[in-house]
Order: sequence, then C-alpha cells, then structure tokens
Amino acid sequence: PAKAKSRRQRWEVKPSDMANNTLNPIRAIVDGMKLTPNPDKPMIALSIGDPTVFGNLPTDETVRQALKDAIDSEKYNGYAPSVGYLKSRQAVANFYSCPEAPLEAEDVILTSGCSQAIDLAISVLCNPGDNILVPCPGFSLYKTLAVSLGIEVKLYNLLPEKSWEADLQHMESLIDERTSCLIVTNPSNPCGSVFSKEHLQKILNVASRHCVPILADEIYTDLVFPGCTSPSMASLSSSVPILSCGGLAKRWLVPGWRMGWILIHDRNNIFGSEIRQGLVKLSQRILGACSVVQGALEGILNAPQSFYNNTISFLKSNSQICFNELSTVPGLTPIMPSGAMYLMVGIDMGHFPDFKNDVDFTEALVTEQSVFCLPASAFEFPNYFRIVVTVPEHLMVEACGRIREFCQRHYRPRSSDSSDI
Amino acid sequence: PAKAKSRRQRWEVKPSDMANNTLNPIRAIVDGMKLTPNPDKPMIALSIGDPTVFGNLPTDETVRQALKDAIDSEKYNGYAPSVGYLKSRQAVANFYSCPEAPLEAEDVILTSGCSQAIDLAISVLCNPGDNILVPCPGFSLYKTLAVSLGIEVKLYNLLPEKSWEADLQHMESLIDERTSCLIVTNPSNPCGSVFSKEHLQKILNVASRHCVPILADEIYTDLVFPGCTSPSMASLSSSVPILSCGGLAKRWLVPGWRMGWILIHDRNNIFGSEIRQGLVKLSQRILGACSVVQGALEGILNAPQSFYNNTISFLKSNSQICFNELSTVPGLTPIMPSGAMYLMVGIDMGHFPDFKNDVDFTEALVTEQSVFCLPASAFEFPNYFRIVVTVPEHLMVEACGRIREFCQRHYRPRSSDSSDI
Ligand SMILES: Cc1ncc(COP(=O)(O)O)c(C=O)c1O
Ligand SMILES: Cc1ncc(COP(=O)(O)O)c(C=O)c1O
Repeated sequence: PAKAKSRRQRWEVKPSDMANNTLNPIRAIVDGMKLTPNPDKPMIALSIGDPTVFGNLPTDETVRQALKDAIDSEKYNGYAPSVGYLKSRQAVANFYSCPEAPLEAEDVILTSGCSQAIDLAISVLCNPGDNILVPCPGFSLYKTLAVSLGIEVKLYNLLPEKSWEADLQHMESLIDERTSCLIVTNPSNPCGSVFSKEHLQKILNVASRHCVPILADEIYTDLVFPGCTSPSMASLSSSVPILSCGGLAKRWLVPGWRMGWILIHDRNNIFGSEIRQGLVKLSQRILGACSVVQGALEGILNAPQSFYNNTISFLKSNSQICFNELSTVPGLTPIMPSGAMYLMVGIDMGHFPDFKNDVDFTEALVTEQSVFCLPASAFEFPNYFRIVVTVPEHLMVEACGRIREFCQRHYRPRSSDSSDI
Repeated sequence: PAKAKSRRQRWEVKPSDMANNTLNPIRAIVDGMKLTPNPDKPMIALSIGDPTVFGNLPTDETVRQALKDAIDSEKYNGYAPSVGYLKSRQAVANFYSCPEAPLEAEDVILTSGCSQAIDLAISVLCNPGDNILVPCPGFSLYKTLAVSLGIEVKLYNLLPEKSWEADLQHMESLIDERTSCLIVTNPSNPCGSVFSKEHLQKILNVASRHCVPILADEIYTDLVFPGCTSPSMASLSSSVPILSCGGLAKRWLVPGWRMGWILIHDRNNIFGSEIRQGLVKLSQRILGACSVVQGALEGILNAPQSFYNNTISFLKSNSQICFNELSTVPGLTPIMPSGAMYLMVGIDMGHFPDFKNDVDFTEALVTEQSVFCLPASAFEFPNYFRIVVTVPEHLMVEACGRIREFCQRHYRPRSSDSSDI
C-alpha cells in the first residue's frame, strides 16, 4: 500500500547523535591501553578518583548513623520535591552561608551528585552553539556533558610553572559573544592546586568585564591543606552571578551516595527568577537525590571536625611523601598540591625516548611495575600523569619506589644531546 | 577596543531553550488552579502518585533492613560503575528473567529512578526531529522529556469504553519514517488499566510491521489485582526490540529512593551492541542510582510475598470501594481499574453546567469539599479526573461521600434537554 512507503520497511535502530556524542575521554584513552600488570608485583591503582577504594578512608560513623536514622524514621521514603526537601536545602544553606555570600534554602538545589549539578548548570545556561570555557588540564565531565548537548568547549590553560594558576590572558582571549559560562574548578582535579584569593579575584574580573556567569565547581572546597585557604568564589564577588556546584562525594567520602547541590549566588539579581525557574524545571526531568540521603543531610554535614581534619592530614602527608619521593626521580617533575586528592607529575619526554607520550609511558609503567596512573592526556594535558593520593601510605611509598625504578631504567641523558653525537 | 565588540557589554543571562522547553503539564495546570479548601473540612488529596504520603502503606521491614545492612557493610560508599554494580544488575536480571524473555546481568542498566530509565531510553533511541508515540491519557513525563530534547510527541488514544485499550488503528496511522519509539505503559498511569495478552500482542504486531522499537514503561508490573495477569511485553515477542523501564518506586513503596532500571530485550539482535553501548555512554553523564540502595537491591527484591500481596489487596479493595461509591453518583462514570494505583472517572460535563471543564470541576471540588483530584487535562484527556487509591480506607469513603454531595449539588438534568425547554 502507498502509505507504507513513508514508514520503515526493515529494522534500523541506531543510537541517537546525543548518545554518539557522549564521549568520555578517560574511557577513550584507558580502553585503548594495554593494561597488563607485571604478574610478579601486585597492582597498585593510583588512577581512580574514588577515595573509598582502598578502604583506608572510611566515612565517619556519624555519617552512616545519620543515614540509618533517616531510614528508621520512615519519613523519607516518598518523593521529595524535585529540588529537594526544604529542610535539607536549608541545612546546606546554613552550612555554606557566610556574611560575604549569604545563602537561603531557596538558593540551594539538591541533585544526584555534583555531576548532575554540573549537568543542570550547563544545561540552564547554554544553548547548542554556545561555548563554555573549561580549564586545561581539567575534569573531563564538563566536555562530555557540553559536547553531548551541542555546546562548544574552549580550553583555557592552567600554568604548571605558576602552581596551576589560570592563564588569564588566554582565558580572556577565548571569550566571545557566544560564551555562556566560565567553569572554574577550585581546588582542582587533576592538579590538586588551590587558587589564591587574589587569583580568584582576577578571574572574577575577567568574568565581570565580559559579563560571563561562572560555574564554580567547588566539590573539593574545604579539602585544602593546613596553611592554605580557599575562599569560595561567591564570597569574593557580589556582581558576578555564580552557580557553585558541590556535594558529599569527596569531603564526606561517600561518592556513591550521589548527593550534590547547586548553590545559587546572585546578589546582583542577574540570574533573576528566570534562571532559578529554569533550574527548577530541569530538575523535574528525572528528579534528584535519594530521599533518605536528603533526610540524613543535616546529620551528615554535622560530622565532627576531627573527621575532616583527619582526612586532610592524611591527604597532605601522602602528597608530601609522594612529592618528596618523585622530586628526586630523574626526568620527573612532580608539582606539590595544596588540596583535593591529586598530584600531577610532569614527564620530561626528552629523557624517555622509549616512549612516544604519557599514554605510552603510563602503559609501560603498568606492564613493568604494576602501577597505574592516569596519563594526563585524559585531561587534554599530555606529558603529565596524575597520581591519586588516597592510597594507604605504605602503598604510596611502594608505588613511588616502583616509579623510581621504572624511570631509572628508562631514563636517558637528553635525547637531543645524544642525537647530536 | 575593537575586539570587545564581539563580546557582551552588559549582563544578559537567559535560561536555555532546553530549560524553557522543559514543561510539566501537571504543574502548568495545577499551578493555574485556585486550590482553596473549605475551611470546615479537612483536605483529602487524591492527587499525588506517591503511595507513601498517608503513611498507611509503609515499605516492608526487610526492605529497610536491607538498606541498613548495605550501609553497615561499608562496601557501597564508593562509585559504582555508571550502569550499576554487576551483582545488583544480576539481582534484577534474576528477578525478571523468564523462559520467554531471559535476562542476564548485562541486559540490565540501573538508573536513578524509572524517570532516568525513561530519559536514557528516549535519549538513546531518538534524535531531534524524530517522533515518539505516547498513550493518551498518559504519564506526562514522556512529553516533558521528549519536548525538552526536540523530539515530537504523537498521542495515540486509549479507549475508555474498551477498558482503556489502545486504539490500534489510530496508533498505526501516526507512524511515519521518523517514528523512533512506541511507548506503552502497562499497567497504566493514569488509568489503572491492564492490557490483556491478546491486546499486547496486537500492539507488538503494529511495532513489528513498522519496525518501531518499544519503550515499555512497566513500573507497575506485578501491581495487578488478583484474577488479572500482565505479562511483560518482552515475554510476548522475540522479534520486537524492547527497552523495559521499571524500578522500586511503586511495588516496593519507596519512590524517594530513586532506584530504577532498563531491561534490554533484544533477542533478534536489532538494538545490537550499538544501542547498548549508547546507553552505557549516556549513563556516564551523571551516573545513576545511589550505591547503597544498589547494594541493598538483592535483599529488597526478596521482600516476602505477603508484603506484595497486602499492597495489592489494599489497592484492589480501595478501588472497589471507590468504584462502587462513584458508580451511583449522577453524572460520573468511574472506570474500574485492574492494577496500579489509580482510577479514572468520566465527568458528563453536559450535566454540570456550572463548570466549563474538568479543571473547573476539580477546582470547585476543592473549594467546596476539600477533595483534590487531578483533572485529566493534565494527561491530555479532558472531562475526566484521576483518583489515587492509596489513601486510607476511611478517607477514601469520606472523599467519595463528599464527591457525591458535590455532584448532587451541581447535577442538572441534561443541559441540552433543559435548553430545549
Ligand atoms: C572536579 C570534580 N567535579 C565533580 C565531580 C563529580 O562529583 P560527583 O561524584 O558528586 O558527581 C568530580 C569527581 O571526581 C570532580 O573531580
Ligand atoms: C507510568 C510511570 N512511569 C514512571 C514513573 C516514574 O517513576 P520513578 O519515581 O521511579 O522515577 C511514574 C511515577 O509516577 C509513573 O507513573
């Protein structure tokens, strides 16, 4: 029959463009690597940004108890509002509110992890064809989300020689009239760096001059080493509108619980009710965080200070061990972090002619030494690799020893010199 | 300076098209209603599809205990794979696998509620400009998600006079070469209807003839009244590829826990690895369900049969009470459900000249009787309203009495007759 012409005559089911365009650079690189550990050495994975994998960093008992209490109360089995229970939003507002950047419950939107917070923030601010500014090296999810939504990503450089400060000139040069959001990750994954107040102010000035709102990924806020401070971006500007994304994953050591939030800072009323309303609407697509975790939120946030302090001392001490060890390894340039749970190490590829690049280098490190570090190509920053410092201390020491052995074996005096011979 | 021309000179931050196009028809209608209850009568809300709101339908003790055990094990605080722990996927596969439609762990993708399952399923199958077929009346989320993604929605009619069977001719007439998915909700929200095996087979034949994959929203599977059966769509066809979406929300009475899943049925290998891979990629955007709930999944699914049976007897008995009561109310035509937790009631508007439509009618029902039912305009099906039957029995009886009083007060003999006079 004629009408059948306009319909399908055979099966042809293909994934959507959005699915095809959802690219995970880490997977793309790691899946292409031959990761065959040396059978004589137990594997040490310094690659996964999950502080719970080794079991040495359990969450606090009060955190677990708060969740069990929420279950027992039987008050949190039903649907929460799509932006979260008012009481739970209030708890987050109270926790982060400060005189310079006051927050009320309605400034808080609870989400399924910081990932969904970032998704909602990008989704509400950007249309297909817009572009966003993203740090390089940086957390890969920004690009994954943006590209899947048809949003262009422009990378601004972080400068390793300046403790990973942003190259402000470069950042500014990238802005055009389709730039709808500037993403700032502070403290940084993958660098472990923490911006000074002055540097944050300079970034805010760029945003302010060009009227670009900021997505501040502050999931590592307060995970900064003693002696260093990291003010929230919002506390430093009342004119630039900021969506600050955070969550329980890192500081409370429960990434699997999928509890995140957006803090809306808009003291100049630039987002206005429209962006708020847009976030509410987007939150209704799939709803957000698990209701019992929401019910436990107030209790969780009130974990004792000693819990936070212990985590931070551990991270600092492990970072210091790693930094000290690798500082004396020929051909490597570790950069001491000030927070978060990562440390970046530069590879002077000229000294390692056996390897084409950081991917090659880290692959061989697995083959020979059973130590796996993420090549920083996964963060669009070749010739570095990232070390996760959440492993138990003895494994950190052991891993650094093996990295030293590996480098000593492959190190050559300047290959440029040798080719001169 | 010249270059500044191409940048923004003043703040202008507007929500994206996606945010603007994320429309919630229920909110659009309810927010426009004047819901001022009669101060002399306590409010009875028969409007919310959340079985937990009245407290008379707690989840089972084994369900709560399973979650507390998962917390105490301290094994589920970290990141789960984006599609869920293998063990938890296996538990769901075991639970739903049957000889006619076998499932393995890799056929299961765990999601943040059935809502995210639907989001991923639509997102992987459809491109902007495609269209999907959606039941009318039907659950409003399909349209909310599709429209926000630039996908067109075509509504196929369900026929109240045929116990809400689909109008197959109408369904078939809507299919064109851009139809990328047929959504079937069985049992139905808002109708509470359950399709017979024969009717499901006819729907499968339509899909098969036109090579359109099916999204089977089976969140109410097994919530069917005694004497009625509801085979899964996948058990009735090995040729039509089916994504079956489900979750813990309804049968386990914990909608807030946000645990859902997609069951991939593709015995003819039409989805192939591409659609599976697409789902995996999309799942990496924000990750899925809370890890501790995943850890508890096996225990939750093993709740005692008596728990399920009690819920179903209660829903059936309440439905029967409501149906019997409203059957004798002049001007109303309730339709007895066979499952789920809803009952639809036709309003013979010709007998109620005081009201323009179902929205007007249900608004006045709040003003006069403090009983709130959702006008079925919210499901694109005017002149009906939906009753949620999860309220305690005495409130169901009380609410029906008040609806009777309301109708008796406003009922007029055929307005067409009276205008003849
Ligand atoms: C910078 C940064 N932002 C966001 C996230 C995601 O957090 P969540 O697990 O809460 O989604 C991570 C996780 O590693 C991260 O490193
Ligand atoms: C037909 C239907 N599908 C899906 C859902 C959403 O389920 P969840 O709460 O698991 O996201 C509902 C909720 O009411 C529903 O009625």
